[in-house]
Amino acid sequence: MKIKLIAIGKTQGAWLIDGIAEYKSRLKHYTSYECIEIPDIKNRANIPIDKLKELEELEIEKYLDKDSFIIALDENGKEYSSENFSNYILKKISFETKSIIFVIGGAFGISNVILERCNDKIALSKMTFSHQMVRLVFTEQLYRAFTIIKNEKYHHK
Amino acid sequence: MKIKLIAIGKTQGAWLIDGIAEYKSRLKHYTSYECIEIPDIKNRANIPIDKLKELEELEIEKYLDKDSFIIALDENGKEYSSENFSNYILKKISFETKSIIFVIGGAFGISNVILERCNDKIALSKMTFSHQMVRLVFTEQLYRAFTIIKNEKYHHK
Repeated sequence: MKIKLIAIGKTQGAWLIDGIAEYKSRLKHYTSYECIEIPDIKNRANIPIDKLKELEELEIEKYLDKDSFIIALDENGKEYSSENFSNYILKKISFETKSIIFVIGGAFGISNVILERCNDKIALSKMTFSHQMVRLVFTEQLYRAFTIIKNEKYHHK
Repeated sequence: MKIKLIAIGKTQGAWLIDGIAEYKSRLKHYTSYECIEIPDIKNRANIPIDKLKELEELEIEKYLDKDSFIIALDENGKEYSSENFSNYILKKISFETKSIIFVIGGAFGISNVILERCNDKIALSKMTFSHQMVRLVFTEQLYRAFTIIKNEKYHHK
């Protein structure tokens, strides 16, 4: 079973890189997990937002294979408690798919074309997190989900 | 106007300390912001959870003055979008109070006594974040709230 995270742009800032690396390293014990950082579109400050999202869309699409269950991390998605998210992951990997791809858009979110291509949408919060912070919060929640599945001590309710 | 965050235990891990420091430093431009870390209760591994929460409660209470509007950061609180949270903060500081205190509990959450003492409860997410991660996510959201109030570029909708 494989889980991938696709994000736009390099992770910025040493503390974010270190935080993500911590949970990524812990995740190794539970699943094959890979984070793909698509390089930022060049000269993006000079590109209109809609055009930028379209260019990012073309890059993201390269990684969306047919056999994967694709989930957008999007503010307008469904919210889960950590327990329910863990249950959701467990059901997906037990019965429905061998590969899950999570997608985080760029600074301006995910294009509608990608959103329609996704099989589901999940929100980490009603609040807006930067696309950089989403990586950290998501990686911790994915790690937390596996500790819940395995009934380990990390998660307190 | 003053905003304080009260949390139990030292922030653990260099990357969390650095991440929180980044948003704390940015917050300086907008408000007086202070984060009070109450030292962990000694030998807490050997204390029953209810007793531990009671001991933490006594420590937290020392910081809850009568003139402040006190908000628990609690999974069962009300969720806000970042825009609505910003609006909430703006109303509070403009008309209702000169001091807001946010409270984050320890690993096992906030005691019921403290929850009842609070004037409001806010949830950052339906998901459970560790009491350490809550500090980082909260500090970023508070910074984001002020950039929204000031109509600055940080927040994209």
